[in-house]
Amino acid sequence: MTETNTEHEKDLEKLFRIIHNVKFAMLTTVNEDGTLHSRPMVNKQADSFHGELWFFTQRSAHKVTEVKKGSEEVNVSYSSPELQSYVSISGHADLVDDITKKKDLWNDSLKTWFPKGVEDLDLALLRITIVEAEYWDSSASIMKKLYGLAKASILGDHS
Amino acid sequence: MTETNTEHEKDLEKLFRIIHNVKFAMLTTVNEDGTLHSRPMVNKQADSFHGELWFFTQRSAHKVTEVKKGSEEVNVSYSSPELQSYVSISGHADLVDDITKKKDLWNDSLKTWFPKGVEDLDLALLRITIVEAEYWDSSASIMKKLYGLAKASILGDHS
Repeated sequence: MTETNTEHEKDLEKLFRIIHNVKFAMLTTVNEDGTLHSRPMVNKQADSFHGELWFFTQRSAHKVTEVKKGSEEVNVSYSSPELQSYVSISGHADLVDDITKKKDLWNDSLKTWFPKGVEDLDLALLRITIVEAEYWDSSASIMKKLYGLAKASILGDHS
Repeated sequence: MTETNTEHEKDLEKLFRIIHNVKFAMLTTVNEDGTLHSRPMVNKQADSFHGELWFFTQRSAHKVTEVKKGSEEVNVSYSSPELQSYVSISGHADLVDDITKKKDLWNDSLKTWFPKGVEDLDLALLRITIVEAEYWDSSASIMKKLYGLAKASILGDHS
């Protein structure tokens, strides 16, 4: 570790600021035939992270069939052309059936995508457990990778 | 096929309009350990597509080590929050060492990311051969997948 705790905290702050700025993340999964597919997901985070990202989805959706066999490798990317900032999160996805958590994360603006509301039996939560996070930003006019953040350090600061 | 040729052409036009509007695409690859990583790539397309996407990269970059063993499954996603439009392209990536093609696609604005210019031996071209393309847009206020476009139909209209 060449960076101090303060620098590390600044990196995490920046990472989370980018994530919160992006309305739709792109979730990439691997199909059974090995092809990679991505799709936009409404970015609905709680105010603090505990090494996890949460998304609402439809149980019947294709992405769910890709992860329902168990925990799957996925990538979640966040593009903010406005901030010229980009985030890549590598993690494991699994479906969580927890009505309390659903109600925690729900608000009625989500009805645009899930018109039947939080009680809909087809509504599922996708939990991404973060393994690695990286971000790029162009504050120095050059797009470069600044840091890779491992799960342990994220948890260290945020759980 | 339930859609007419005209509808299909409109879909392709829309897809390409989204792609051209996005300065940085996110390229997702699978590491040897199975984890998925993405990173921003300068979107540098020629005016017409022939079922391929091209990106400049550094031969020494990590993403190149991931694809250098041969053609690899990748995903390229394009996020346009401004247009509220999103594209997922599934394809195969390989490195192409073709100075003519490099000069074709090069312009000096790329020096921001590749300061040594088009003659730099570390400069490589990554070719993505499109297998499937999908896009979402919110013109109807609901984000939904409109069409999956198979390679054959893309080539049919554009080669």
